[in-house]
Amino acid sequence: MQMKRDFRFFHFLNEDDIQQLQNFFKCRSYAPGEDLWREGDSSYFIAFITRGRVETKKETEFKGKQVVVGVYGPESLIGIVSLLSREERPVTATALEECSVLMLEQDSFDTLNREHPELSNRLMKGMLFCLSMRLKQSYERLAAIF
Amino acid sequence: MQMKRDFRFFHFLNEDDIQQLQNFFKCRSYAPGEDLWREGDSSYFIAFITRGRVETKKETEFKGKQVVVGVYGPESLIGIVSLLSREERPVTATALEECSVLMLEQDSFDTLNREHPELSNRLMKGMLFCLSMRLKQSYERLAAIF
Repeated sequence: MQMKRDFRFFHFLNEDDIQQLQNFFKCRSYAPGEDLWREGDSSYFIAFITRGRVETKKETEFKGKQVVVGVYGPESLIGIVSLLSREERPVTATALEECSVLMLEQDSFDTLNREHPELSNRLMKGMLFCLSMRLKQSYERLAAIF
Repeated sequence: MQMKRDFRFFHFLNEDDIQQLQNFFKCRSYAPGEDLWREGDSSYFIAFITRGRVETKKETEFKGKQVVVGVYGPESLIGIVSLLSREERPVTATALEECSVLMLEQDSFDTLNREHPELSNRLMKGMLFCLSMRLKQSYERLAAIF
């Protein structure tokens, strides 16, 4: 299992943490065009993208027609909202090319929180860092348009 | 101190947590036009906006000319990147109208993490939820433009 310290979401972890996390994360690869999940699914996991790009799409009012709402590359986290709100997937997530992700499922996330709160803290700090960096970039992109 | 459960960043907290957090957060209000911080500052705190809107601006290559890079309203968290990376503020943050924020300073955040890891976990889950919701919205806004 490749748990690289280079990824910002693991920035605050130490060697022991990384060892321990291997029991909670699953590695998965997706072929181009393969879905990580589909809109309306009740599959709850966070995906930490480590390789490739994933596109998210939403159904429009025209049946079968979808609009792309986001493209996420390495160092992106997707699927957090559904995991925390326990609501159905609001979008379909599809691999645009060969993709690798580290999956953290609902149960594992809950166990991690409950049994290893300090490790969870360090992991969540990295997740917060990643998300805020991305949010900052997206605001800057929006600002550059107007 | 008004620590409302309504705010999504406090969604995972229980009554005891909210009591305890009052020792760590500071309430602050800003008048219209007042700066929360300026680009290049080394003041490290996260601001949980509870009322009003805050604008972030960045210096351009033309001295004294700034470009707006974001506008944040209630339920937004600002200042996380600087707090976690311990780098200078990359933008100036200015109150656009009467604003109230809950401030969580570097030291308090570190103490909270160290001494109350479980409470920290519940707080950070709410922060992650907020940030991912905003990120999702901003991607959808970008998608709507193109």
